[in-house]
Amino acid sequence: MTTTISHVTGAAPGSPSAPPTPERLSATGEGLRRALDGPFHDLKQRWRDTVTATDVVRDPAWSMEEAREWVLEKMLALVGRGFLTAGFPAAQGGNGTQAESVAQFEMLAMGDLSLTIKSGVQHGLFGGAITNLGTTWHHETFLPGAMQGTLTGCFAMTELGHGSDVQSIETTLTYLPDSDEFEVHSPHPLAHKAYIGNAARDGRWAAVFGQLIADGENQGVHVALVQIRDDDHQPAPGVTIGDQGHKGGLLGVDNGTIGFDHVRIPRRQLLNRYGGINDAGTYDSPIASKNARFFTMLGTLVRGRICVGGGAASGARKALSIATRYALRRTQFRMPGLGPEIRLIDYQTHQRRLLPNIAKAYAYGFAMNDLMEQLQRVTDAHGADPAAARELESRAAGMKATLTRWATDTIQECREACGGAGFLSENGITLVRQDADVFATFEGDNTVLLQLVAKSLLQGYAQTWGDMDLRGTAQATARMVGEAVVEHTTGRALLDRLIASAARRPEAAQLRARGWHVSVFQDRERHILQSLARRMRAASKAPAADAFAATNACQEHMIAVATAHIDRVVLEAFTAAIERVGDPYVRSILIQVCDLYALTVLEENKGWLLEHERIDNTRAKAISQAVLDISAALSEQAIALVEGLGVNEEWLNAAILR
Amino acid sequence: MTTTISHVTGAAPGSPSAPPTPERLSATGEGLRRALDGPFHDLKQRWRDTVTATDVVRDPAWSMEEAREWVLEKMLALVGRGFLTAGFPAAQGGNGTQAESVAQFEMLAMGDLSLTIKSGVQHGLFGGAITNLGTTWHHETFLPGAMQGTLTGCFAMTELGHGSDVQSIETTLTYLPDSDEFEVHSPHPLAHKAYIGNAARDGRWAAVFGQLIADGENQGVHVALVQIRDDDHQPAPGVTIGDQGHKGGLLGVDNGTIGFDHVRIPRRQLLNRYGGINDAGTYDSPIASKNARFFTMLGTLVRGRICVGGGAASGARKALSIATRYALRRTQFRMPGLGPEIRLIDYQTHQRRLLPNIAKAYAYGFAMNDLMEQLQRVTDAHGADPAAARELESRAAGMKATLTRWATDTIQECREACGGAGFLSENGITLVRQDADVFATFEGDNTVLLQLVAKSLLQGYAQTWGDMDLRGTAQATARMVGEAVVEHTTGRALLDRLIASAARRPEAAQLRARGWHVSVFQDRERHILQSLARRMRAASKAPAADAFAATNACQEHMIAVATAHIDRVVLEAFTAAIERVGDPYVRSILIQVCDLYALTVLEENKGWLLEHERIDNTRAKAISQAVLDISAALSEQAIALVEGLGVNEEWLNAAILR
Ligand SMILES: Cc1cc2nc3c(=O)[nH]c(=O)nc-3n(C[C@H](O)[C@H](O)[C@H](O)COP(=O)(O)OP(=O)(O)OC[C@H]3O[C@@H](n4cnc5c(N)ncnc54)[C@H](O)[C@@H]3O)c2cc1C
Ligand SMILES: Cc1cc2nc3c(=O)[nH]c(=O)nc-3n(C[C@H](O)[C@H](O)[C@H](O)COP(=O)(O)OP(=O)(O)OC[C@H]3O[C@@H](n4cnc5c(N)ncnc54)[C@H](O)[C@@H]3O)c2cc1C
Repeated sequence: MTTTISHVTGAAPGSPSAPPTPERLSATGEGLRRALDGPFHDLKQRWRDTVTATDVVRDPAWSMEEAREWVLEKMLALVGRGFLTAGFPAAQGGNGTQAESVAQFEMLAMGDLSLTIKSGVQHGLFGGAITNLGTTWHHETFLPGAMQGTLTGCFAMTELGHGSDVQSIETTLTYLPDSDEFEVHSPHPLAHKAYIGNAARDGRWAAVFGQLIADGENQGVHVALVQIRDDDHQPAPGVTIGDQGHKGGLLGVDNGTIGFDHVRIPRRQLLNRYGGINDAGTYDSPIASKNARFFTMLGTLVRGRICVGGGAASGARKALSIATRYALRRTQFRMPGLGPEIRLIDYQTHQRRLLPNIAKAYAYGFAMNDLMEQLQRVTDAHGADPAAARELESRAAGMKATLTRWATDTIQECREACGGAGFLSENGITLVRQDADVFATFEGDNTVLLQLVAKSLLQGYAQTWGDMDLRGTAQATARMVGEAVVEHTTGRALLDRLIASAARRPEAAQLRARGWHVSVFQDRERHILQSLARRMRAASKAPAADAFAATNACQEHMIAVATAHIDRVVLEAFTAAIERVGDPYVRSILIQVCDLYALTVLEENKGWLLEHERIDNTRAKAISQAVLDISAALSEQAIALVEGLGVNEEWLNAAILR
Repeated sequence: MTTTISHVTGAAPGSPSAPPTPERLSATGEGLRRALDGPFHDLKQRWRDTVTATDVVRDPAWSMEEAREWVLEKMLALVGRGFLTAGFPAAQGGNGTQAESVAQFEMLAMGDLSLTIKSGVQHGLFGGAITNLGTTWHHETFLPGAMQGTLTGCFAMTELGHGSDVQSIETTLTYLPDSDEFEVHSPHPLAHKAYIGNAARDGRWAAVFGQLIADGENQGVHVALVQIRDDDHQPAPGVTIGDQGHKGGLLGVDNGTIGFDHVRIPRRQLLNRYGGINDAGTYDSPIASKNARFFTMLGTLVRGRICVGGGAASGARKALSIATRYALRRTQFRMPGLGPEIRLIDYQTHQRRLLPNIAKAYAYGFAMNDLMEQLQRVTDAHGADPAAARELESRAAGMKATLTRWATDTIQECREACGGAGFLSENGITLVRQDADVFATFEGDNTVLLQLVAKSLLQGYAQTWGDMDLRGTAQATARMVGEAVVEHTTGRALLDRLIASAARRPEAAQLRARGWHVSVFQDRERHILQSLARRMRAASKAPAADAFAATNACQEHMIAVATAHIDRVVLEAFTAAIERVGDPYVRSILIQVCDLYALTVLEENKGWLLEHERIDNTRAKAISQAVLDISAALSEQAIALVEGLGVNEEWLNAAILR
């Protein structure tokens, strides 16, 4: 099947390459980088210090076959150096926490997104399913190989017919008591697994999602390990594999379809941590409700979603680094009167295109750090805090949708900001653009995920104040938005103090007062949630025939509340992170960056804020002007700011920067 | 060099293929298509009736080499069938008007954008430069070959150092009186021509832009025909050609660099319609001012810009056709209570993603038709109406920027709206996405073009009311916006009548009153232009050292006025086009589509409208609700609406629709 000798470098995988040229960072850039890396600084710095562009940067001109080969090879090489094995149980040789495995993903994503997704499928999804849904036997039998990449695996959830609606997948895992086996079967072509990474070329095993049928009863979606290729790397008996071929990006990932024709597997290959067939041959689960069981299982897989948001953001950071560095060198048009030529970065429009996105890169980066720590806390609680687990899922969904949307738009902006050069593959941006595109879709389609966030917010709402009158609801919501989520991300006391201090300041000074930003962000979320809850309550009273129409009419409203929620969570994370920065100069810059983030979001929502009388005309105009002014001011710090984004300069690999 | 036998079909270029399967359109779809094709219906229908997917649809998985070969071959085949030769002088065998050449470009762009750009470079840019800047000898000598594609040519304007700032290019065309030749020279590496289509592989000649130096004096940018490859297809002596290789898209177009090392060409190879060396050996031009000369020459090349906007819109129409048809078949999630599965098109969010973009596709299509007719009028005037020519240039710049921005965003939305399937190359959207990307950059970068529009609006303003006081200026602007541009696109009387009738209607009915839309669009443009003019006047009084800073601070304001201007022009074009539709049912649908276009634009500008008290809170909320309601209503007509967009169903070539 695949060669282990590189066609690119001629080096065997795992062989050490010369360390990267050490970067020479400005002191401010170094300080910003430490701040943004946060708790993961040492880990991330180890990547920068020891992983070269040759290890992780792909040639954008390679064909699909070349890309696939390179990706597998480089993944194995990194594993050999101990890089991609965080998040596995220590007993099996895992060498880092769950949070650290996300940080590794973020770093690798600054190199190449195909390589990242390949490892994401192998280690994160396949390995993660075994880790989280399997028991000791599965861990001992499969994890060492999964981790080392000798046992290549797929995560086979999606089917041609059902993607977003996982609960309706049609593959069956039917228990056969006579032989004590499961029969894995695709009842018709649309039930074939689809888009499955690692399936088309490399994968030998798959974690297959299907409806568990025992004794004629459907126990809902479960996962079993199925060998899909035999030792000669041919499809295993009863397994049909299709190659989905060329894609709009991620050419290094071999996505394919998998069909099962009455394939039999031993009972113990079911990943049975949350339910399975006991020795008596009957179905058994610690979780009684099918629905709860399904969501519990899916919940343990939340890390993939967190990774995808972080990975997309890494791609955007890389594109921003290239475009900003280019804008500092490239000139076009002369100053009036045959003066010197003007640098792109000095144009107001160019500042407006780049700096607010740099500010968002910081904001989302700090919020990601919080999310990763939250993931770690939930992991460490081992199921003891279901409320925290639910909140993590909702946060992960919202962050994934927000970061991937922003990343795609930002990378595109960077492409265009480099003019014709941005379109040449040798300058690196178009590859990131193409690879990051699908991040909006996989690990949960963004539109679907934002609705999940809204539902979870509404649930919290309904549980607590289900039967209150309108006035009571309003007060309660106010408290909830002010408290619930905040407590986990940052000190409430800090935010309360900022809000109170902003309220005491004169009108004109509020524009740059963090407390004012926080209170407007909170207020926006609160108001949208309240009005949505009111509409949804009315919708829930519609007659059955109109039930879909009634809730469907609230979909855009749901998207709006989810967006407002994540905006607030991000601002609060940024605010809290600044408190932790010691260096006063770095801190002063981050305060401006946070101002720019907050005001950019307020400007984007100007229509809503005016419509709901949260700001008046004068304030609205002042916000737009402030976005321009801060962008201009921060453009003086452009190099330090992109250094802070943390992408090794060598990895940028853009011809225009050489 | 290139083979003339296809590696794909085995057929020689020009050989007829079986005609496409006739489409079965709904009556409404047919009517909408006729309306949107407008004056170009017969021409466009000829394409649909006789050009197959094999003729114009590329396999997205092909390598750069395969794509380049296919593109050249298919272009020659279409030329052989008389398809791409509109716009050339009839004396040389041209078979259509300038306007028709744009309509051809739009049709071809529904097939494949690489093929379109290849022909755009060969016929539109290379052929167009000779047609418009050359004289009889050039026409007779070069046009037949340029048209047939036997004389392959480049349009070599951009240099590595100067793209947007064409006036500063550094290639020199120095007249040598002793030998009566020009010397073509690149004084240093950054003066090499860059991104030049047709250069890397196929082009034998190039229309080279350079500073004409005669008798030691620089007469500004002129264009000369230079042979860049000899008869063996090797770079001609003194010419260095580079291949810019893999790009983010347009793999079928061979972009490259060209350098000149003291290359000599006969005097008559200068395209000397607007200036050249006379028989006495001195420089001569009908246009005295260097600046005016430059802009006149560039102005004659406006068609390329018009084509690019239209071509991008064709790509978006294709993507919308695929995504909408898919949304009508694909279901996901069940109705409450295990009801039937829900079609994507029935989701409110999905309607919101697709329908407003379909409405824009119509709006921009009607405005393109007007623009093409405007191009024809200016061409037919043969320079007799310089004001109309200037207005055409400004309109072309604004339309190009607006349509390409919208196209890129819309194609991306369509990709995502198809979920995972949208990312598979076999479903056609990612190819369009990648190819259309650079349309934001070439034929003028969008940010630069929108500033041109603003400058042209300000110029009209300054010329007429340069010395008025504020009050006078306001009144005059009001008149100007109400008149100037409108007269060319549509009957003023119609608009006045609509505005008057809207004003008489009750508040609540205004939301769907075209006259109200038109008056708000006009008012928005007027207000932004007025305030910009005021700021620019103040800026012009700044001391020389601050001149750049002063005008730079107005850049975002300039972008805003250009956008408002094009929004209005488009709405007026749509309004007038509806008047010309006879069929009352088709007309009633177009009225809703136009409502949706107008309200979508108003919603996008809600912040501005509220900030400037053009609407109140109630109206603002009603606008958003109306966008959702009309989108839902029109989703019932989705098939007819995409049929109307005019892309042959066979050309969609998407696996998910088979
Ligand atoms: C490159 C790639 C790699 C992948 N890797 C894997 C893998 O390794 N393993 C795996 O199991 N899967 C994988 N997937 C599948 C991926 O997770 C799915 O594509 C994704 O979940 C979306 O499902 P779908 O494609 O069926 O889209 P659909 O669910 O059909 O959605 C299509 C569109 O409809 C919209 N929509 C759907 N439902 C609603 C609703 N209720 N309200 C509003 N709008 C709605 C969505 O927004 C979307 O735009 C991969 C996909 C790709 C493209
Ligand atoms: C695929 C492709 C094909 C092409 N084909 C041809 C061809 O056949 N012939 C040919 O002559 N050229 C061709 N071009 C070149 C193309 O026309 C130029 O790329 C384009 O004009 C932009 O110039 P530039 O690349 O130098 O960008 P720059 O002018 O350097 O612009 C870079 C960025 O700076 C911004 N910027 C520049 N000036 C300003 C300003 N004053 N204010 C604010 N922002 C500003 C722009 O918005 C842009 O984002 C092609 C380019 C590509 C990519």
